[in-house]
Amino acid sequence: MSCDFMALATLGVQGLMPYEAGKPVSELERELGISNIVKLASNENPLGPSACALAAARAALTEATRYPDSNGFELKRALHHHYGLDADLLTLGNGSNDVLELIARVFLNPGDEVVFSEYAFAVYPIVTQACGARAVIAPAHEYGHNLQAMAEAIGERTRLVFIANPNNPTGTALPRDQLIAFLDGVPDNIVVVLDEAYTEYMQGEDIPDGLELLPHYPNLVVTRTFSKAWGLAGLRVGFAAASPDITDLLNRVRQPFNVSEPALAAACAVLDDTDYLQRSVEVNRAGMNQLEQGLIRQGLGFIPSHGNFITVDVAREAQPVFAALLREGVIVRPLGGYRMPHHLRVSIGLPEENDRFLRALKQVLAC
Amino acid sequence: MSCDFMALATLGVQGLMPYEAGKPVSELERELGISNIVKLASNENPLGPSACALAAARAALTEATRYPDSNGFELKRALHHHYGLDADLLTLGNGSNDVLELIARVFLNPGDEVVFSEYAFAVYPIVTQACGARAVIAPAHEYGHNLQAMAEAIGERTRLVFIANPNNPTGTALPRDQLIAFLDGVPDNIVVVLDEAYTEYMQGEDIPDGLELLPHYPNLVVTRTFSKAWGLAGLRVGFAAASPDITDLLNRVRQPFNVSEPALAAACAVLDDTDYLQRSVEVNRAGMNQLEQGLIRQGLGFIPSHGNFITVDVAREAQPVFAALLREGVIVRPLGGYRMPHHLRVSIGLPEENDRFLRALKQVLAC
Repeated sequence: MSCDFMALATLGVQGLMPYEAGKPVSELERELGISNIVKLASNENPLGPSACALAAARAALTEATRYPDSNGFELKRALHHHYGLDADLLTLGNGSNDVLELIARVFLNPGDEVVFSEYAFAVYPIVTQACGARAVIAPAHEYGHNLQAMAEAIGERTRLVFIANPNNPTGTALPRDQLIAFLDGVPDNIVVVLDEAYTEYMQGEDIPDGLELLPHYPNLVVTRTFSKAWGLAGLRVGFAAASPDITDLLNRVRQPFNVSEPALAAACAVLDDTDYLQRSVEVNRAGMNQLEQGLIRQGLGFIPSHGNFITVDVAREAQPVFAALLREGVIVRPLGGYRMPHHLRVSIGLPEENDRFLRALKQVLAC
Repeated sequence: MSCDFMALATLGVQGLMPYEAGKPVSELERELGISNIVKLASNENPLGPSACALAAARAALTEATRYPDSNGFELKRALHHHYGLDADLLTLGNGSNDVLELIARVFLNPGDEVVFSEYAFAVYPIVTQACGARAVIAPAHEYGHNLQAMAEAIGERTRLVFIANPNNPTGTALPRDQLIAFLDGVPDNIVVVLDEAYTEYMQGEDIPDGLELLPHYPNLVVTRTFSKAWGLAGLRVGFAAASPDITDLLNRVRQPFNVSEPALAAACAVLDDTDYLQRSVEVNRAGMNQLEQGLIRQGLGFIPSHGNFITVDVAREAQPVFAALLREGVIVRPLGGYRMPHHLRVSIGLPEENDRFLRALKQVLAC
């Protein structure tokens, strides 16, 4: 008789449900036997990769038999040049997912508590649960962070607080003064993670920049990714910036070769490609406007977004709408898993992709 | 006053010393201001990458803005074709380091015990410590696994056993019948990890193949990597094969996009490049012979190796020899961290690289 391996797993792992990824185009093609598919499901950059990044990654591939630089010397130097961050503040990750997990693994014992908001990024509950810690979920305010409620959720056993700004999957953003007031109020033995995966898309004057706040808050960890505005999701690279003490701990747990060499090279190169970043932001702004106008014309509500996606209230069960859109060759993200059963999250695409989505949505909702 | 973040870390992380990677060529160039360096420190494939793998990775780069396929459909299909392994037995990893860590995180609670051999791969103690578990180290027999001692080291709190075959850093290998007798004796609620990172280099009739043993041992996990004979260390890809129940648990903890798309594509392609694998093995065999003969001529002892490296007894403190070789532009691996202070591990290189090492070693030891 075989053994019950589930019973042998840690309690945290026993309670874990894996992350559900956006459906890849190839999978939908296999399932439905269709082509010409538009994927607006994973908040990917619709421009295609930066030519500079591509060239750097291609060059790095010729050395693919060699292990990557475990310390990421060149990328840390580029991050220093670009953001003024010293190497002893940096932890490189296999995407920012990797550094989010490292933070949890460094600080969470079974039974510890982690505070985050209702409608927060799915990775926060996953890394919390994997460590056997307990998620304390603060109620949202208009789908965004209610920092007052989050402050009140902090208790004796709280070790970590996760805040995403802008927030995924709702696109809401926090003003600078509110975030600072919150950070001022958090006890300095509680680590606050500010996830800025979508920060490059934010516009306006009152925008907090986590990297500028770092020197003032030794308990602050800022995470960034190259998967969104920098267009390198397929290569997997992101980073955390934090005080040297926290950085030392994160790097102890980090796998020595967690970031591939083509990813390191591409990230270095794209940081210098300011034109690419600018085009990413401009295409996003235009596409956001296009989708907002189209949704308004269809009489649909949406959550005003500061990211590269928009979350639409379809005013009915969204899962069948998602499924019908799939059959039209349009992949978006249903948010039932986020307890938003009437919402679909739609990534901003190229103009023709946005148009295709709007037309498919209109057709599907008319049925 | 700043907070003591070390005190806030889990006990396991507090006790953790990070893995020390082989020195990258670029780092030595910066430090010593020299070029024309030979790196024989990280058991990398000296051939350079497979042309097929390179082409596939390059093609995948054009889609770098898209997340990788979270489920690794195509690579699992290729692994099925190549090894007959069904998808529900497979866990893909960011190198086999990643799957070794996943196994530890699934099964280890603080205070649990993990059995492995003296002179075992450094990642086993690291992942054990990171989980707050306790390493129980069985004494080696002639630098290899003493399976009798390992069986005796298993106790009430043992959850995992790690065995590397061939072993890194000593190159020793276990005969099939011994390994089977050991597996037969391990209680079925203890998970045995058979790390076969170097298995492609093994030759002879009495070689155990973990993948063939899998159906008979539901508690067996076999790990493989594309970093060695397959020549893709820089891209980070490996896998674990195990029973569906264990595989389900590993995939719950796995980061959804842990393997980059170029890595997935390159691994698929190289599996079909049987010529590359054959050349890797042949170059390794010839280079091993070259190094053995050269060491014998210099009157130096070594541990007969089944991997793509050879561990040399320099009959004195090896750290200064390592340092002197660095100044000659030859990077090898000192094994003080493995409590083998008189040994250097040398990866098998191309003929001219092996020759360069032998000449440099002779010169250094003559001083």
